[in-house]
Formats: sequence, structure tokens, C-alpha cells
Amino acid sequence: MPRFQAQVLVNLRPSVLDPAGEAAKSAANSLGIEGIQNLRIGKVVNLEIEAPEEAEALRRLELLSDRLLANPVIEDWTLDLNPLHTTKTA
Amino acid sequence: MPRFQAQVLVNLRPSVLDPAGEAAKSAANSLGIEGIQNLRIGKVVNLEIEAPEEAEALRRLELLSDRLLANPVIEDWTLDLNPLHTTKTA
Repeated sequence: MPRFQAQVLVNLRPSVLDPAGEAAKSAANSLGIEGIQNLRIGKVVNLEIEAPEEAEALRRLELLSDRLLANPVIEDWTLDLNPLHTTKTA
Repeated sequence: MPRFQAQVLVNLRPSVLDPAGEAAKSAANSLGIEGIQNLRIGKVVNLEIEAPEEAEALRRLELLSDRLLANPVIEDWTLDLNPLHTTKTA
């Protein structure tokens, strides 16, 4: 069965405060690292999925992202899906 | 001063266990989402930085990633940096 590599980025919606990001920005200033702005922290989920075809893999991953990986009240997600070639020639 | 948009991906090293990822994979199965494998959860940090030139922005962000965003004992990071064009013509 075809395998796919996927990356789901889960970020806080722009209207939602990000205290962890603010703390990291302040810590950067304390370290002497200047010029950092708008620092926001999200999640990256890397996974592989086996599915009969790409459209089915996409359907499953959209469900996974909506139901499990992101909290749709405060988070957005984006999905990147690529076929995984396990057999390589040269 | 030029502004840059950066994305830092922080992932657990391959040799480090990821209990949160394992839990998410199990939860996917419970939801009836089949075929998920090797699910691992990391952080994505989006930020903007003002610096005199791109090389200096890169230097600061490498320092930030090494010292603050990633724990080098258990995590790797990758950095993507792009100029931010605030003035657009058409």
C-alpha cells in the first residue's frame, strides 16, 4: 500500500494570546539577542500514513488534524503531504 | 532596518522517545483513523527579526535556537529565513 509523509503545522489563531511566545521573546532580550518580534510558538506533527491512494490519505489527515491535533477554537492547522518512496534506484 | 520572517522547527532527536506522539497515534486509532505510523510531535516557532543584514539575522537566530528554543541534549532544530517585504507594488 502506498505510504505518504505528512507534516501538520498547528498554530494559535492570530487573535489568541501566546504567553509562551511572549516569554521566549523576553528571554531572547535577556540573552542579548536583539530585534526579535512577533514570536509565536506552535506544534509541528510529523508522521507517515499508509493509504490506498493520496486522496484517502488526505481525507484521514484532515480528520486527524481537525479532531485530534488542533483545537479549532484557538488553533489553525496546515497540512503538507508527499508520497514516500521507500525503494530508491541509485 | 531590513526585516526577516523566520520559522524554526524543533524536533526530538530520532533516538529520543516521544510519549505524546505515541499517545496521539493511539488516539488516532481509537478515532478510527487507520494507517498512521511514526507520529512525532515537535515545536514550530514563527517570528520576525530586524537586523542590519541577512547574515546577522541568521547569526542571532542560530544563537536563539541553540540557547533558548531547543534543548540540544534531546532536540534538533532547522531554520528557514526569508526577507520580509513590507512595501508591495501591485
